[in-house]
Amino acid sequence: TNYSFKVQAMIEKEVAESQKPDTFLRESDMGSNVTSNSSSVRGRFEKMIREAQDSVCLAIEKADGGAKFKEDVWSRPGGGGGISRVLQDGAVFEKAGVNVSVVYGVMPPEAYRAARPTDNGNVKPGPIPFFAAGVSSVLHPKNPFAPTLHFNYRYFETDAPKDAPGAPRQWWFGGGTDLTPAYIFEEDVKHFHSVQKAACDKFDASFYPRFKKWCDDYFYIKHRDERRGLGGIFFDDLNDYDQEMLLSFSTECANSVIPAYIPIIEKRKDTPFTDEHKAWQQLRRGRYVEFNLVYDRGTTFGLKTGGRIESILVSLPLTARWEYDHKPEEGTEEWKLLDACINPKEWI
Amino acid sequence: TNYSFKVQAMIEKEVAESQKPDTFLRESDMGSNVTSNSSSVRGRFEKMIREAQDSVCLAIEKADGGAKFKEDVWSRPGGGGGISRVLQDGAVFEKAGVNVSVVYGVMPPEAYRAARPTDNGNVKPGPIPFFAAGVSSVLHPKNPFAPTLHFNYRYFETDAPKDAPGAPRQWWFGGGTDLTPAYIFEEDVKHFHSVQKAACDKFDASFYPRFKKWCDDYFYIKHRDERRGLGGIFFDDLNDYDQEMLLSFSTECANSVIPAYIPIIEKRKDTPFTDEHKAWQQLRRGRYVEFNLVYDRGTTFGLKTGGRIESILVSLPLTARWEYDHKPEEGTEEWKLLDACINPKEWI
Repeated sequence: TNYSFKVQAMIEKEVAESQKPDTFLRESDMGSNVTSNSSSVRGRFEKMIREAQDSVCLAIEKADGGAKFKEDVWSRPGGGGGISRVLQDGAVFEKAGVNVSVVYGVMPPEAYRAARPTDNGNVKPGPIPFFAAGVSSVLHPKNPFAPTLHFNYRYFETDAPKDAPGAPRQWWFGGGTDLTPAYIFEEDVKHFHSVQKAACDKFDASFYPRFKKWCDDYFYIKHRDERRGLGGIFFDDLNDYDQEMLLSFSTECANSVIPAYIPIIEKRKDTPFTDEHKAWQQLRRGRYVEFNLVYDRGTTFGLKTGGRIESILVSLPLTARWEYDHKPEEGTEEWKLLDACINPKEWI
Repeated sequence: TNYSFKVQAMIEKEVAESQKPDTFLRESDMGSNVTSNSSSVRGRFEKMIREAQDSVCLAIEKADGGAKFKEDVWSRPGGGGGISRVLQDGAVFEKAGVNVSVVYGVMPPEAYRAARPTDNGNVKPGPIPFFAAGVSSVLHPKNPFAPTLHFNYRYFETDAPKDAPGAPRQWWFGGGTDLTPAYIFEEDVKHFHSVQKAACDKFDASFYPRFKKWCDDYFYIKHRDERRGLGGIFFDDLNDYDQEMLLSFSTECANSVIPAYIPIIEKRKDTPFTDEHKAWQQLRRGRYVEFNLVYDRGTTFGLKTGGRIESILVSLPLTARWEYDHKPEEGTEEWKLLDACINPKEWI
């Protein structure tokens, strides 16, 4: 599905807010007289991602030991909004962003068809209103031995087409958590993947192997023929399971971020390093930028649809580096990382 | 015209060469029995861009006062190839790349139609072989008061369709030279634009105003609503003038790079600066990366068609920076630069 690349500026300009509202949902989505179950999923998903934002930010501030997140709240006149939190130049973190957003938008019908794997192609033309909510985060530590973490969990729903009253809404879940180190510590990568697998295994034994491979396939920098990092889990357009089960699964994944990541940060944040280690980390940060600006759906979708630019690009590292034709010497630690990005491994 | 975004990996993998050939043209393009004039334009354009590469590299080495360009020569089995020259971490230049390339490729017919403004739409389906040659360069100085320069001059030609023997080939010229400072010195920007205007005025009084505006429009970072820099000249798909005239014009533009840029570098390369000046330069370098990876046709075309990655991405700065929600204070020098990127000015 590639609806992301077909839509154009159909999101209103955001405005800054001084207060955090209890919900970014439209009033029509919140009433006690909700008739469909999916309507209440909107509210429960928003609650989940806001709690995930709070707990991850708290854990990051604690690990950093001093720096605090700066918060920006924004909304859109027609409904929706978000909370962006950024911690910059901390003791441990170079840049950490944790955002939640709720979007009400409209997409062209061709995009709707493309995004509906089960659709039989008989949808009448006309713009389709949609709802999207998600938590998205990128955590870039300073120490080159401490890995970058990314996670994102999102829920997407379309309104029933106007010419088909009572027709079921389409909904799906997407998300993932993945690790991007500059150097491999096998115990760290094993720990990270084990936590992802445990979260998956609570729901379906097929999830971890399937979403692990999906992650390796998704975070692929085609022009380099290498992956951005060492993967984790990734899934998208997931709607062929029970909706409640997928809501619980997304919640479990979001709750697994702290146990998967914080122990690694605690272990690596003070490891001594040289200028050469730092330069290699910066080169890998350059690859991170390449992936996000050229391939990442969330980023390219956001840039093209008029999303809040500063929230979208908070995923970019504070600093990055590009050296011409840099090739690590075979057998070095840098080479081992690159090799694992070129040839994804089974870590557990 | 947007043929660039429709083509997919139809260029062969390149191989490294130890020797520079006299020409990268296919033998069939070089013989003395050439029957069409456009065939010899290929050879004369290649000669021009290789001379431009030599003279610019010499001038940059001289301005740097110590560092030397590293050269990589490569070719493709079916014809074509290139010379990449990169100077990294010099005394004056952080990263300077000057590349020439000659490409023989094949594009889908829909792309061909899109790229031919005069076509009447009756082209039979079937892949269209094309020839493209160009010189491309990005020069990033270290000193935040010394501006980045980019220039690119290219010639594009399609082979006559197989089912229409004797039908004229399509050809066009493209290119431009533009300046990207982190701080404005009005005399520098005026000097730069004056040299561009003088080159244009030798050929057509409409060229400078038209290509100056085209440049402002092209180097537009849509998601920021700002331009990458302070412009210069830019043109593309130019074929509605005499072919010889456009070859001379491209040559004149390429020859204007040194007089337009080197005097500015000499004046600014040793200006004292603070960490704050450097951080602002690095933020602007981040914008440079955003433009090149998200919008630049040459880059996105190259990444998608299997071009030589290291040559394409040599345009990226050695280092770049992204700060969350950075806004220069009104009236500061940083604000003045940003304002000129948001509201393009007439410099002369």
